[in-house]
Amino acid sequence: MDNFQFYSPTEFVFGKGTENEAGRYVRKHGGTNVLLHFGGGSAVKSGLLGRVKSSLEAAGIAYTELGGVKPNPRDTLVYEGIRLCREKKIDFILAVGGGSVIDSAKAVAMGVPYEGDFWDFYSGKDPEAALPVGTVLTIAAAGSEGSGDSVITKEEGGLKRGAGSDLIRPRFSILNPELTCTLPPYQTACGATDIMAHVFERYFTNTTEVEVTDRLCEAVLLTMIKETPRVITDPSNYQARANIMWAGMVAHNNIVGVGREQDWNSHGIEHELSALYDCAHGAGLAVIMPAWMEFVYKHDVMRFAQAAVRIWGCPMDFSDPENTAREGIMCFRHFLRSIGMPLDFGELGAKEEDIPALVEKFGIGDGRTGGFVKLSAEDIAAIYRIAAAPELI
Amino acid sequence: MDNFQFYSPTEFVFGKGTENEAGRYVRKHGGTNVLLHFGGGSAVKSGLLGRVKSSLEAAGIAYTELGGVKPNPRDTLVYEGIRLCREKKIDFILAVGGGSVIDSAKAVAMGVPYEGDFWDFYSGKDPEAALPVGTVLTIAAAGSEGSGDSVITKEEGGLKRGAGSDLIRPRFSILNPELTCTLPPYQTACGATDIMAHVFERYFTNTTEVEVTDRLCEAVLLTMIKETPRVITDPSNYQARANIMWAGMVAHNNIVGVGREQDWNSHGIEHELSALYDCAHGAGLAVIMPAWMEFVYKHDVMRFAQAAVRIWGCPMDFSDPENTAREGIMCFRHFLRSIGMPLDFGELGAKEEDIPALVEKFGIGDGRTGGFVKLSAEDIAAIYRIAAAPELI
Repeated sequence: MDNFQFYSPTEFVFGKGTENEAGRYVRKHGGTNVLLHFGGGSAVKSGLLGRVKSSLEAAGIAYTELGGVKPNPRDTLVYEGIRLCREKKIDFILAVGGGSVIDSAKAVAMGVPYEGDFWDFYSGKDPEAALPVGTVLTIAAAGSEGSGDSVITKEEGGLKRGAGSDLIRPRFSILNPELTCTLPPYQTACGATDIMAHVFERYFTNTTEVEVTDRLCEAVLLTMIKETPRVITDPSNYQARANIMWAGMVAHNNIVGVGREQDWNSHGIEHELSALYDCAHGAGLAVIMPAWMEFVYKHDVMRFAQAAVRIWGCPMDFSDPENTAREGIMCFRHFLRSIGMPLDFGELGAKEEDIPALVEKFGIGDGRTGGFVKLSAEDIAAIYRIAAAPELI
Repeated sequence: MDNFQFYSPTEFVFGKGTENEAGRYVRKHGGTNVLLHFGGGSAVKSGLLGRVKSSLEAAGIAYTELGGVKPNPRDTLVYEGIRLCREKKIDFILAVGGGSVIDSAKAVAMGVPYEGDFWDFYSGKDPEAALPVGTVLTIAAAGSEGSGDSVITKEEGGLKRGAGSDLIRPRFSILNPELTCTLPPYQTACGATDIMAHVFERYFTNTTEVEVTDRLCEAVLLTMIKETPRVITDPSNYQARANIMWAGMVAHNNIVGVGREQDWNSHGIEHELSALYDCAHGAGLAVIMPAWMEFVYKHDVMRFAQAAVRIWGCPMDFSDPENTAREGIMCFRHFLRSIGMPLDFGELGAKEEDIPALVEKFGIGDGRTGGFVKLSAEDIAAIYRIAAAPELI
């Protein structure tokens, strides 16, 4: 196990009706003048935004609204948010929505006290300050409600890049599983895939002696394997939604990933897909993550065999562990298929002829990137090609 | 799953050499004038205390020493700590040691800003303020480095009672597994037993639909089952120590226990043993926890069968699940035996004739207490009797 630092100071408020506590928690965490950040119509139509506003008003908190966050949130709205926060002397940002809204809120939070261009933080610079952020989560997926991460897409050129800092971990996050019960099966499955990918990116590691985080990773995945099919067939199943919602947080606040080298290539490789085709991140991951596995599993057959046995319940083939490793990848694809996810470029609406452009945009040139296996541009092209025509299916 | 609130704002600094960062973290978390709280000679002799002092000095932080914390920490030293903190205008308490030192530090932290007797917080009162606490952990056991709990023994009458508040969660905790490598096998095993008990107290619940926390609980237990025997045979095994140390934190900061009714009767029933005989808490738990299981398992045979199958790898007896449930309890006892723990009153040095006095001190009168099974005074006596002469062994 490697040395690490772990800091997850977010106060989580979980359960039915908890969105009505938003005002109280903003006040508890020092907010008096809020930017209320949200996405499209669903938060308005469902009455959620109204309930949050009532709760802010009841707590005597002023607010300014900024809606319109889109999936794969854009830099353009972040600039508008920064301008608005400065103009209105905002001291707290409350994100009401899913990962996109929260990521946008985090970008605004870093941008407000910074004199330069906020995009600097998405180009490798560390922020020195940020406005406090709180969240009311509506989708179990990105894990942004408990993480110090944010991903933003630059409208010009479609660059999708991430930033990370403990400064943007939410001060509080309100998680009411009821709010996710109206999410249709496809979006639900996309979220579940994202959650599972967050764990797999941590699970495949070269760091040895990491039993505790291995087991914690497996715990989250086993939960997702049990609970996801239940919400696909019965979207309003509160209990299954609740298990998934907490699993989504645990998957990505890094408690299951500390002290081990991680690999985020699948996320990076997928980002180019969702940036180019504007597809759902989770759907893109369903295509890329198993393709990445298919490309790299020979690097550590026993780790993939462990995943197959412990996560997918495959019998261990002691005479040919590679067989078990492959079976695990196939189980993952079968699971993704069973919850309605695409498995290849065709189903996703991606085109094989775009692969050179996707690799070009990934932008590593002659370098290599990743943790578990360091990939070259050529390797990434190979993974896209597997994603276009998978074998272990 | 039940509604819950979860808040674990402690900054964890994990790995080799991290105790040399103590000064920097005290400063980061606002401390300038520290009470340096510790136990007996081992922290001094090992040079640890010297390194921590050097680190405080390097960071320009003043400190006042208060050593002498004993296992099962006493109220008398807490009163002295409170007096000292007020006199010296202490603004931060740094605990260097195991759970006893940290619990004592937490008691002092609550007592300083409080006009009344600090014991009020150990009699059910909620604190409204507390000095900030940081820790340098030397034993993987109590989980106090990440929890909002503290247990103190009142010297007069030997009452052992707990207090809990998010206010006493440490601001930072430094976890260097190297510091635990000198711990002898018996104390190591006591710590491991305490860690496992913290999980079992959460695992046995009447709350349904808790797959995510069930799986997380199992993850910690599976880790302990793998790693503990390694450090018993090879105390200086850094990697096994590291896995156990992080498991010990995860077991008790409540991330594996949220949203479910818990049962803390085994801890309560054990506390009377360690208060009366001054035995190690972990050794007491090795005797009491399986005895409690033996007494209650019929309340939910399938949950105990799940534990047996998922944690101990027992084959499921589909024609007689009770058989599987019992086998799981026996596996737990075999495991405890294998790491050198006592399994009954005789081995612990407890006496059957003291049972009425132990029950009397437990002090529930005609009431009932607990989560999974609500126990009467008579039930508690029965559990002590099982602990004196276990059957499932």
